Amino acid sequence: MRKIEHIGIAVKNLEVSNDIYEKLLGAPSYKQEEVESEGVKTSFFQSGPNKIELLEATKEDSPIAKFIEKRGEGIHHIAFDVEDIVIEMERLRKEGFILLNDKPKKGADNKWVAFVHPKGTNGVLIELCQEVK
Amino acid sequence: MRKIEHIGIAVKNLEVSNDIYEKLLGAPSYKQEEVESEGVKTSFFQSGPNKIELLEATKEDSPIAKFIEKRGEGIHHIAFDVEDIVIEMERLRKEGFILLNDKPKKGADNKWVAFVHPKGTNGVLIELCQEVK
Repeated sequence: MRKIEHIGIAVKNLEVSNDIYEKLLGAPSYKQEEVESEGVKTSFFQSGPNKIELLEATKEDSPIAKFIEKRGEGIHHIAFDVEDIVIEMERLRKEGFILLNDKPKKGADNKWVAFVHPKGTNGVLIELCQEVK
Repeated sequence: MRKIEHIGIAVKNLEVSNDIYEKLLGAPSYKQEEVESEGVKTSFFQSGPNKIELLEATKEDSPIAKFIEKRGEGIHHIAFDVEDIVIEMERLRKEGFILLNDKPKKGADNKWVAFVHPKGTNGVLIELCQEVK
């Protein structure tokens, strides 16, 4: 857990929220990317060593669509940058955390990612991510 | 907005959550502090350039108690480090954001803080913070 890599925010309309977060952070989104397997369009903003990732659902049954339906727009997950995602997943499993993935999968922004179940972390969905080399 | 200073997480029991986040982050809380004016006990963890702040309500009518009652435990706010909080508040006001404070107030961890209303930021409560000199 070397730093907060990014915070994922679930939004209804990426275009509208891009404008809002450009004003808030004082600089525009530097990348937009669709992750078809997850049913999302993403948009990234830099804030020093960290990023903000806006997420809009592209399918009605995607996790982001369900999240917004249940809780409204808002913070969806915290992603931590890790040096070796496989070692970190194993460490967390041994500590009793429930991993939502058996193996790392390909996420947005050229990352290997895995998620930790929010039941074991006070309702916070945690993502681990490691740059794909 | 120089970086994510910390993420605030609302929890029911600080002792229990200290153990969880020590296991998750691989290092113990480095500071615990009560902010009486806000009706909270806080606990801080370092993650590289960023922090995680756990928040437990000390009063039934405190914002954290109300948040948990309404939404359960989970991420409460994102705090951004700013160089000059007064200038940043003024910039955001001009951009149309609603500030929840007229002036910066004293928060935990030796910081001047001010909050931006989540209505204008896709449901995300944003905190600005500046180190008290």
